[in-house]
Amino acid sequence: MNQQATTRIEVEPHIFVVFGGTGDLMRRKLLPALRHLASRGHLGKRSIILGVARNAELNDESFRALAREALAASPSPAYEADGKWCAECLFYQTIGKGTQENFRALAARIEELEGAHKLPGNRAIYLALGPGAFPSTIMRLAEARLNRSPGWTRLVIEKPFGRDLASAKELNQILHRHFQESQVYRIDHYLGKETVQNLLAFRFANALFESVWNRDRVESVEITVAESLGIGTRAGYYENAGALRDMVQNHLTQLLTLTAMEVPAAFDADAIRDEKVKVLRSIVPIRKEGVVFGQYDSGKIDGEAVPGYLEEPGVASDSQTESFAALRIEIANWRWQGVPFYLRTGKRMAERVSRIEVKFRCSPVTFFQPFDDCNVHSNALVITLQPDEGFDLRFEIKSPGQGMNLKTHQLSFRYEEAFEPLPDGYQTLLLDVLTGDQTLFVRDDEVEAAWRLYTPLLEERLPVSPYTAGSWGPPEAKRLLGGGEDR
Amino acid sequence: MNQQATTRIEVEPHIFVVFGGTGDLMRRKLLPALRHLASRGHLGKRSIILGVARNAELNDESFRALAREALAASPSPAYEADGKWCAECLFYQTIGKGTQENFRALAARIEELEGAHKLPGNRAIYLALGPGAFPSTIMRLAEARLNRSPGWTRLVIEKPFGRDLASAKELNQILHRHFQESQVYRIDHYLGKETVQNLLAFRFANALFESVWNRDRVESVEITVAESLGIGTRAGYYENAGALRDMVQNHLTQLLTLTAMEVPAAFDADAIRDEKVKVLRSIVPIRKEGVVFGQYDSGKIDGEAVPGYLEEPGVASDSQTESFAALRIEIANWRWQGVPFYLRTGKRMAERVSRIEVKFRCSPVTFFQPFDDCNVHSNALVITLQPDEGFDLRFEIKSPGQGMNLKTHQLSFRYEEAFEPLPDGYQTLLLDVLTGDQTLFVRDDEVEAAWRLYTPLLEERLPVSPYTAGSWGPPEAKRLLGGGEDR
Repeated sequence: MNQQATTRIEVEPHIFVVFGGTGDLMRRKLLPALRHLASRGHLGKRSIILGVARNAELNDESFRALAREALAASPSPAYEADGKWCAECLFYQTIGKGTQENFRALAARIEELEGAHKLPGNRAIYLALGPGAFPSTIMRLAEARLNRSPGWTRLVIEKPFGRDLASAKELNQILHRHFQESQVYRIDHYLGKETVQNLLAFRFANALFESVWNRDRVESVEITVAESLGIGTRAGYYENAGALRDMVQNHLTQLLTLTAMEVPAAFDADAIRDEKVKVLRSIVPIRKEGVVFGQYDSGKIDGEAVPGYLEEPGVASDSQTESFAALRIEIANWRWQGVPFYLRTGKRMAERVSRIEVKFRCSPVTFFQPFDDCNVHSNALVITLQPDEGFDLRFEIKSPGQGMNLKTHQLSFRYEEAFEPLPDGYQTLLLDVLTGDQTLFVRDDEVEAAWRLYTPLLEERLPVSPYTAGSWGPPEAKRLLGGGEDR
Repeated sequence: MNQQATTRIEVEPHIFVVFGGTGDLMRRKLLPALRHLASRGHLGKRSIILGVARNAELNDESFRALAREALAASPSPAYEADGKWCAECLFYQTIGKGTQENFRALAARIEELEGAHKLPGNRAIYLALGPGAFPSTIMRLAEARLNRSPGWTRLVIEKPFGRDLASAKELNQILHRHFQESQVYRIDHYLGKETVQNLLAFRFANALFESVWNRDRVESVEITVAESLGIGTRAGYYENAGALRDMVQNHLTQLLTLTAMEVPAAFDADAIRDEKVKVLRSIVPIRKEGVVFGQYDSGKIDGEAVPGYLEEPGVASDSQTESFAALRIEIANWRWQGVPFYLRTGKRMAERVSRIEVKFRCSPVTFFQPFDDCNVHSNALVITLQPDEGFDLRFEIKSPGQGMNLKTHQLSFRYEEAFEPLPDGYQTLLLDVLTGDQTLFVRDDEVEAAWRLYTPLLEERLPVSPYTAGSWGPPEAKRLLGGGEDR
């Protein structure tokens, strides 16, 4: 998170190298984000972008044509000057089969472009690749001496970072052999969301909430990331991942640590990440009884029939991959002991929503219960990340008229009512990479601590319960989360 | 406050006797409220209303004509059946000069009406009179044996109740000679306001706020009842009252005690009033330095020139009557020691508003201050009683985009957006009288404790500082309240 105000962002001239330069992420997210930053003058003078991919047929010209198409198709508004920008700032280099030779050619091209554009050697290298390609790419980069430069060199790694503790450790070892941890940006685009960043501001700028943010006042915390979509055509990836790897280990765990962390010593990357790691280290090993895995059956979403997981193209007919996970997490520290943190995520659920719900304890005594029509609900702070980002505070008030009839109402705040459209997460995160701010990126020890927590659950083959598409998951999950309303 | 739900209010058949039956309060408030309650079936079967006044010319018929006029002119919607209702339910009896004879005639008329309407002797007697008439009326009622009846007899007394401690004590003694305290309803129509009642529900049904409702978390509490009107033609009353007697001793003190009180042992009239009295008894004697009196000078309100207090008709040219008062109150108990409670009220102020503002302490440490454009404000809960009743919670959030820029926003709740138009305070209070609920009425010891607090300030002739009409009071008041924005 950059500490400067919007008007004074200074990014040094650099080359932005994207591995996977013709891929989906580049087309849908990175390119529009970079274009937007450029249009605001945030990329710095003379900076250029170099797409890198296997395709040996492509050249600068045809790559630019692809980029123009991608920008035109992007949901963010196209700029009139897109064509000019592509022509001036975009370049392409093939990496072929990824041999030593190919990487040497890449290094030569980078130096050539830096010379031509009078760049001081600042390099951001973005690995928009499948996880299998990370180790070899990192090693080849180092062999070609692309791990350092006369300016700064920063390496951005997409998720997933490893698929269990052992593989994450191995990847960290490879990284550390060639890069300093301060050069490494493990990206989780969830952290670019305004509301996630705002969690930090909200917690530490509002003494009212911080003073009740503990086991004395909080009954439970529920973190939900629900999707209504199924896996679509991504069985190849998803069959090897499942909800725990795909969502829980990264997104939900990030939300968990940001919600539960202590006040950091300072508002900088390492102080904040220190506190996040402390939360992870305080988590009690998750018990089998505290986990529900599910797999969606056919059902209806928005009135439309949708197939079950096993009927999706590319899924094994006996697949035990979980498309849903609910977990009960216990944090054994002074602040949170005894307060359950529930994590819940799934595909083909009743609605698409990401939210953190902090439920406060009820009044110890209530005067209102015995009266007619009276129900005292506990207060709750609901932080919604999507689709309509904002805050809601649920509280009880008396209904007008005779009698002490309580009703639950909400004090509500929606970002879109107060501000311009929110920036895309990638805009925020790319700018953080370019200004050298690691706050919103996952540190080596943090990613390992998260895997340490979940790997035992991956090794133990937990049963997978069916749930109807369009529901809130298997009934076991509802029981785990303590019943209550369906949502 | 009645404990039954709206649908099940059962008022026993009764006669509702109003002294001052042709007066302003009857016409503007009581009659429309009674009519409204009757239309909802809340007055009970066969109940009737007897207007009592000096006018010996008036009879049932001409009194009903007056009543129809009053209902037609009332801001609340008229009912088609108003004429029928007046004809069936309204009666008139002169009290002449208020002799023993007159009261005996009144008693006879009441019994006659009770006989004719088969009423069991339940009587509400409402003294909508000037305070000077209270003692003699109470004594005459007793002499005529109107202080008890075969059913219940309840006596409603309008404010002001006394003009200092001695006179309040004397009035209580006269009352207690002839009535039980449980028969006495000292009315303060502020307490009928939904938001005031809601304060109790809000505080004790929302553990989130109750847990920060103390000296550890609250910086200060500010209670403001500001009017933009001047005294108009009421100099006769106001010159003998002033802001301290007119507003502080009753309305503002009620808001103070409801805000500061401990959780009562039960939600009933005496348990709640016990706690209010405890607050009053814990208040440290108010120091001269903690009080600012003001008197409005000419000025502008809504762009229109308005005269100063001394220019109002009927005001002495050297009047030292305060039309503004600001006080710093200290409550020396475990919950509130060290937290200033500011009371502020005045006429001819910048706007008409009644609100309670609970300011919470700032974060002990802030990360955000050194950054550009960052200002961390403290959180505040603002309870607005009028004109737009509701709650606002002021909190800080991050502005979207790069940089940690905080902005103060509000979580807001307005009654009128959630509910039907609110009932008038008198509707609530009259129904409480008729159902025998004393919760919202001021008890004998409570009214004396309040006078005990303020009487020394009345005896000590404090200086009165001028302030411009349309401002927020004299500059001394702003200093007393700790500066800050003008509002």
